[in-house]
Amino acid sequence: MIKMKISDLGEKKLIKRIIANIRSHLKDFNIEGLGDDAALIDMGEEYIVATTDLLRQTSHFPEATTYEQMGWKSVTVNISDLAAMGAKPLGFLVSMGLPAHMRVEEFDELLGGILKACDHYRVPLIGGDTKEADEIILAGAAIGRTLKGEVLWKSGSEEGDLVGVTGQLGLAAAGIKILLSKMGEVPVAEDLLSRIMDPALKPRARLKESLLIAKSHLVNAATDITDGLVSELNELINASPRTIGIRLYEEKLPIPSEVEDIARFLNEDPLELGIYYGEDFELLFTLPPENVTPLRDQLDFHIIGEVTTTGTIEMVDKEGRTYILPVKGYEHLRG
Amino acid sequence: MIKMKISDLGEKKLIKRIIANIRSHLKDFNIEGLGDDAALIDMGEEYIVATTDLLRQTSHFPEATTYEQMGWKSVTVNISDLAAMGAKPLGFLVSMGLPAHMRVEEFDELLGGILKACDHYRVPLIGGDTKEADEIILAGAAIGRTLKGEVLWKSGSEEGDLVGVTGQLGLAAAGIKILLSKMGEVPVAEDLLSRIMDPALKPRARLKESLLIAKSHLVNAATDITDGLVSELNELINASPRTIGIRLYEEKLPIPSEVEDIARFLNEDPLELGIYYGEDFELLFTLPPENVTPLRDQLDFHIIGEVTTTGTIEMVDKEGRTYILPVKGYEHLRG
Repeated sequence: MIKMKISDLGEKKLIKRIIANIRSHLKDFNIEGLGDDAALIDMGEEYIVATTDLLRQTSHFPEATTYEQMGWKSVTVNISDLAAMGAKPLGFLVSMGLPAHMRVEEFDELLGGILKACDHYRVPLIGGDTKEADEIILAGAAIGRTLKGEVLWKSGSEEGDLVGVTGQLGLAAAGIKILLSKMGEVPVAEDLLSRIMDPALKPRARLKESLLIAKSHLVNAATDITDGLVSELNELINASPRTIGIRLYEEKLPIPSEVEDIARFLNEDPLELGIYYGEDFELLFTLPPENVTPLRDQLDFHIIGEVTTTGTIEMVDKEGRTYILPVKGYEHLRG
Repeated sequence: MIKMKISDLGEKKLIKRIIANIRSHLKDFNIEGLGDDAALIDMGEEYIVATTDLLRQTSHFPEATTYEQMGWKSVTVNISDLAAMGAKPLGFLVSMGLPAHMRVEEFDELLGGILKACDHYRVPLIGGDTKEADEIILAGAAIGRTLKGEVLWKSGSEEGDLVGVTGQLGLAAAGIKILLSKMGEVPVAEDLLSRIMDPALKPRARLKESLLIAKSHLVNAATDITDGLVSELNELINASPRTIGIRLYEEKLPIPSEVEDIARFLNEDPLELGIYYGEDFELLFTLPPENVTPLRDQLDFHIIGEVTTTGTIEMVDKEGRTYILPVKGYEHLRG
């Protein structure tokens, strides 16, 4: 008999397996948000929100990443999960695996990056652990709070809602692709380079926007798109108690010309970078059409599609042809 | 110029360096417990308590450890930090690094151990992350709550207090030493073996005892002794705003005869196993002499010494001679 390895399952299926396993364990506790971006602990009028995310040097950071950027990103990935729930951060903790040969100045840079990010998001670094490891491992955990009426769930999308996204798509992917292709060989203008390297190496979680959205009561569902837009649209579809689908319009996708230029140069598909690759720390949400203008008064976003009842994710291309988008995400454990 | 590596610093000094670095970062936040077993977030009438602890397969688990025991221990080490503060657990999160070749049944055992421990401590598993890694890495984080008047600080010891400890000393160390020496060669009776293997491989955090102690208002300071008794006594001394010391009495130390037998066989010093090695998930506390009897009505513990003003840790040996105990702990990052 051939035994199945977890790499055969892939990360998403492994997490589904975990969720299935813990459902019965959780039945005696007041916990919500299972399968959402972060878990919610019922505290009466509000929820305590908690999440954890692990990054390791060799698989999550391009070689050019500085220690400061690694530290920054370990905070950002966790804060983004709180933002995806509309939660205000209360504290950040980080367990670090550190190589014994790491120099003290390098460690100070790493810690400096963590503290800069904590200051940026106005969240205190409240705990940590350090252990020796073969490479840098940053296991962060973020704790937040949210009023019960202001949670941004994945599950509330309604037929006819419009689909909104903050910021632009594909910038981080383009930056990472350049880094992986060995920067020097890509003839990219200096100012453009810095504009795409920041999303790739020092991404910002949309915390402020998330809190505005949560307080506005104008959206029906929300998540972040760090695992890729299509993968996260699929999460919104799966989270909905009713069968819903999503229709996207290619011409409405905020994929900037820089991403197209870089994709052309690297022989990549700009659409692939924009909707599949992930690493964009943007917020994705669905909202009734009449709420678009009131929300626009508070923050910038793009409408990229609408909620349907097809159960699938469709794309209407620039020529008006509709096709179904396959769901594939960023699978860390796939061989 | 020779650059200093973090392995030259060692874990305790590295953590001191981190604490020094984050003091200024934290000045704008309502955070207490820095340098204590867990951090405290001020929520008005109560604190949210949070801690994180990372374990990795090759350095924190003897080879004989089962996947279930690994999962169990990752919960226990974090719950023990909450127990050390007198906090009631609200939730546990775990970021897992997993080898791609790990089999699905092995993963299920690991998760099963986490869930069994969570059920044992009555804490919900509320979040997780899985990423590929070269070996098993379990970065846990535990969140708890405590009323403001019931926190078990490290800092409150008073001259004349007695020093108490729950349970026995050195059992886990003896078990781990046997495992490291390749079990088969040690002629230990079956029932004894199981009595010492459980503390070594499947330790229990003293959560129930901690909550009793916290509610009793009878102790002045407390911590857990997972890093070794002497190391933790030193923590109590350092946490005190006044200069205090500790005097221990060798004859009062609850080092059971099993530990002495195994130490003799393995040519180890039983005192070393009992007071330096660590891994005993017991609680250490100081309390006024008149509080001993009222606390004894609620739980079992041993009085092992008293609080002095010498600034040192002294041991009175079985012949009545006093000597100063050097402070040395369990240093993971020491080469």
